[in-house]
Amino acid sequence: MALISPSRRLRRTPFSDGVEAAGVTAYTVYNHMLLPTMFESIEADYHHLKAHVQVWDVACERQVELRGPDAGRLAQMLTPRDLRGMLPGQCYYMPIVDETGGMLNDPVVVKLAEDRWWISIADSDLLYWVKGIANGYRLDVLVDEPDVSPLAVQGPKADELVARVFGDAVRDIRFFRFGWFQFEGRDMVIARSGYSKQGGFEIYVEGADIGMPLWNALMAAGEDLQVRAGCPNAIERIEGGLLSYGNDMTDDNTPHECGLGRFCDTQTAIGCIGRDALLRVSKEGPVQQIRAIEIPGARVPACDRAWPLVAGATRVGQVTSSIWSPDHETNVAIGMVRMTHWDAGTRLEVITPEGIRKAVVRGGFWA
Amino acid sequence: MALISPSRRLRRTPFSDGVEAAGVTAYTVYNHMLLPTMFESIEADYHHLKAHVQVWDVACERQVELRGPDAGRLAQMLTPRDLRGMLPGQCYYMPIVDETGGMLNDPVVVKLAEDRWWISIADSDLLYWVKGIANGYRLDVLVDEPDVSPLAVQGPKADELVARVFGDAVRDIRFFRFGWFQFEGRDMVIARSGYSKQGGFEIYVEGADIGMPLWNALMAAGEDLQVRAGCPNAIERIEGGLLSYGNDMTDDNTPHECGLGRFCDTQTAIGCIGRDALLRVSKEGPVQQIRAIEIPGARVPACDRAWPLVAGATRVGQVTSSIWSPDHETNVAIGMVRMTHWDAGTRLEVITPEGIRKAVVRGGFWA
Repeated sequence: MALISPSRRLRRTPFSDGVEAAGVTAYTVYNHMLLPTMFESIEADYHHLKAHVQVWDVACERQVELRGPDAGRLAQMLTPRDLRGMLPGQCYYMPIVDETGGMLNDPVVVKLAEDRWWISIADSDLLYWVKGIANGYRLDVLVDEPDVSPLAVQGPKADELVARVFGDAVRDIRFFRFGWFQFEGRDMVIARSGYSKQGGFEIYVEGADIGMPLWNALMAAGEDLQVRAGCPNAIERIEGGLLSYGNDMTDDNTPHECGLGRFCDTQTAIGCIGRDALLRVSKEGPVQQIRAIEIPGARVPACDRAWPLVAGATRVGQVTSSIWSPDHETNVAIGMVRMTHWDAGTRLEVITPEGIRKAVVRGGFWA
Repeated sequence: MALISPSRRLRRTPFSDGVEAAGVTAYTVYNHMLLPTMFESIEADYHHLKAHVQVWDVACERQVELRGPDAGRLAQMLTPRDLRGMLPGQCYYMPIVDETGGMLNDPVVVKLAEDRWWISIADSDLLYWVKGIANGYRLDVLVDEPDVSPLAVQGPKADELVARVFGDAVRDIRFFRFGWFQFEGRDMVIARSGYSKQGGFEIYVEGADIGMPLWNALMAAGEDLQVRAGCPNAIERIEGGLLSYGNDMTDDNTPHECGLGRFCDTQTAIGCIGRDALLRVSKEGPVQQIRAIEIPGARVPACDRAWPLVAGATRVGQVTSSIWSPDHETNVAIGMVRMTHWDAGTRLEVITPEGIRKAVVRGGFWA
């Protein structure tokens, strides 16, 4: 692996000092911001995440804030998910599509109030699309990126750790709901959510200055829980089938291809800019879709590009994420497969940079 | 420095195989794509660039293509530069602003025809803004990212190298003009432009498949010219005052603050979305502006965040790029300075992570 060159353009976060002190060894870049990818090793980090609790600097999940009388209308223009029943206090996973139905982002949207929303984004400058739409349609809404940096607490001991810092009331937060809690006199949104299958919270830290005090408080409170600095783990997220925008889907894909049809209400999502483009696919279904893929045998190389999936001489899809799983003793993978070959048990081949390997379509992910 | 984690999301380019074979040692991420930052060392790369010729993988300068009857109208909506006099065959450096006059990108726009434009972008998803505007204003224009990857040839021997591969006619291309040339039967736009002060060209390679054949042809043709794989060089670009979007300016800044007032015709740029917001600053001038800054003495650390510039106890600006220059035997830097302290010769202090240093405002850059 090569080094990453430091520059202001690859933005540091309110937690970077803590991440560095904890011995981060690798990064990726996400929304023009540093996102740690490894501390001890991907596998050591993985085992620890599944057994204990980790604090993750996911400040790179930047927020697009909508404020004003047209905030709700604008939110609905962005997504084929019907937002009419959404209450303040709820979080929705919300595919964002353009006028062709292509995915521009797959954020979690946080409804703070009828006229105030945070869209917690994956890796693309969704701010630019939302500002362009708000301007073009002359909506009465302010759109910007506030000084809000999520800090995730993930792992089986997450409830215990967060309760020690914020009080036992956090244990009552339901999945994809949030509440307001205080830390050193500052209000913070805490949601039960996060980019792992191990459970936990995302704390929306408003104001960069309070970042390290909170980081340090969590580390101090969790010493006997073996708390560590961590980060989204490539093995754990692929086992769990957590998709990654830019890896497993791009603006070439509809939500239905990504298996996100259950988050779409295309018929009733009146106002969604991509609604017309998606009506047919929402009824008839897509011709290709995300699948769990197993690549048995020896470790695969780093998956830094799409690997073609073939049946004989015919290309029938591609693998976009893959890594060796110590727990399952095989290579776990995520791929996009055409409907002719997407049934569980279908045997295919995958062309990796290190040669052709056997691949099997699975009925579901591992976790 | 930490490592960079490979993933499909950090896109490879048509030239990545060549970059790896040439021994790249560090990357940054730019428009969700790998951009090499170092081969032998920053200083060795710098000396070579100034003496010979380098081939740069700048595929990360992605294109936003505008096609259709409203393409010209849309282009003018994006920028306070008056585009009415622009002819096909010209390239313009074109600040892009939002409705507040804040900079969203600072691309070079290539006018291929009245109804076909390429916007060769800096590091932000300008595609999203342009698509949002086109949609919101219901313009008759197609907006997308074509399969076009710029390859730069930079350095004092660039004319000789490019002439060997494309013919002597390339020598006649004027600065910021382009022509169409053929390579292996394929048409390519070649412009006299590039992100260095050493002269050279940018070749707009259409079709990923022809990327490595062209790379290899340039390397073979330039063996006696000591051609090497290279990349935008941090020292050379700071000496030359070449700004970097995300480093030296963000959407907080107007073009005038960035010293780009000479590329703005705010009075006559009718249709520009940010025109109203910029009228006053275009007449009265900005209250802070980009300046060349010298930081004498020992080497500064890597500039991975804004360093405050202070006069006594008062913050008067910030340094956003800085590095040791072997040729000038000082630390060269780019900063944003308030008008009270921006005169040449003004002595300030700069707060780096390794302590306070003397800093001097200069009248101009080094190159």
